Amino acid sequence: MKNIDVCLSPDLLHLHKLNNSIVVVTDIFRATSCMVTGFAYGVSSIIPVASVEECKKLQDMGYVAAAERDAQKVEGFDLDNSPFSYMDERLVGSKIAMTTTNGTLSISKAKPDAVKVVVGAFLNLGAIISYLQNQPYDVLVLCAGWKGRPNLEDTLFAGAVVEALKDEYFVSEDSAIMAMRVYNEAKSNMGAYLSNSSHIRRLQGLGIHKDINYCLQKDLYDIVPVLRGNELVLA
Amino acid sequence: MKNIDVCLSPDLLHLHKLNNSIVVVTDIFRATSCMVTGFAYGVSSIIPVASVEECKKLQDMGYVAAAERDAQKVEGFDLDNSPFSYMDERLVGSKIAMTTTNGTLSISKAKPDAVKVVVGAFLNLGAIISYLQNQPYDVLVLCAGWKGRPNLEDTLFAGAVVEALKDEYFVSEDSAIMAMRVYNEAKSNMGAYLSNSSHIRRLQGLGIHKDINYCLQKDLYDIVPVLRGNELVLA
Repeated sequence: MKNIDVCLSPDLLHLHKLNNSIVVVTDIFRATSCMVTGFAYGVSSIIPVASVEECKKLQDMGYVAAAERDAQKVEGFDLDNSPFSYMDERLVGSKIAMTTTNGTLSISKAKPDAVKVVVGAFLNLGAIISYLQNQPYDVLVLCAGWKGRPNLEDTLFAGAVVEALKDEYFVSEDSAIMAMRVYNEAKSNMGAYLSNSSHIRRLQGLGIHKDINYCLQKDLYDIVPVLRGNELVLA
Repeated sequence: MKNIDVCLSPDLLHLHKLNNSIVVVTDIFRATSCMVTGFAYGVSSIIPVASVEECKKLQDMGYVAAAERDAQKVEGFDLDNSPFSYMDERLVGSKIAMTTTNGTLSISKAKPDAVKVVVGAFLNLGAIISYLQNQPYDVLVLCAGWKGRPNLEDTLFAGAVVEALKDEYFVSEDSAIMAMRVYNEAKSNMGAYLSNSSHIRRLQGLGIHKDINYCLQKDLYDIVPVLRGNELVLA
């Protein structure tokens, strides 16, 4: 039986052995929701990079570049961190370079040791589940959190994955059990459940209620972005 | 308004500023439940130490020594990690040296930066709440977890503290919100809620169901162990 586990923060990733695991990186507000949306609208690849400098270099080489820090767009870049920015005909077939506070960092951390790294959001939840079921590997859902701290929305996504796979996978660790329980309590109204979360408050200050509602929708897109070498492409 | 926050694992403690905080360390199964029980039964002080070697040295100096690793007593020591071992007339007035897998490590980690470090368990929950209310400092509940991983029982305790203080303290971070929600879901039957947690399974293999039920009782003792220098004493 395959195992499924949850890592609530990239700062806890050192506790997990990844040599037989697919890591599902999630950063619901908003990096992985943006990535999924971009692919759904025709982006051909996304290179996640850890630093703003690397992102700038790739922009100079011709990539469409997206840099976010502290939930805001960094000046001089092409795209912000709203998923609606990725619904743009001009991006069809494009190669994007992206750096974000938490999401791309988590991808970088998982990359060296994981069998595969895939990008998950509520927007492609069902596709992620089917993909995992058809793979022979254990699963670790890595919550990007906020600057090392666990957060509610990523934990909810992790719980949704565990809930969907709990009958086929061995759920042994408390983080996974906790995420699943939190999800089951929240699932009938995730927006209300998240209404006083720290990141919602952070984002509401930036006036992006529309982004929040969009990112909490399930199964809009039947796609799975997967890391191949340095770039994310469709599986 | 004072702040209250929760740290789900000692491996995330670096994310928290402690210079205006009382840290409540909790390791429900079973280190902090043992400590509280020991003080309730007349122990005069407990020195928490990080290593088995340090604990052995203190034993050689005349301390009653308790060493646990992987949920079991280390050979050659006087006490195991069952709270019932601390209900012993011979311990009245004694000085204990203690090392455990998670609990004493968490105390060591919090000590350098916190204003105060206190020891919490369900057994002294109400006493901890009153103590905190009468102090001018912020609060961080530090869950000892299991070898760096968050666990359910310590998260429940953290949630119980947040729930009790939520109207007087500012609850801003998701870990605190999550702990409170998990506690509120579990509080009517914590034993059932924890029945498939990782540590319950680990302990059940060791046949200590009695310890588990004991450690989940609230407010048996109206005491607060606090760190003074290197040793825990009653506040």
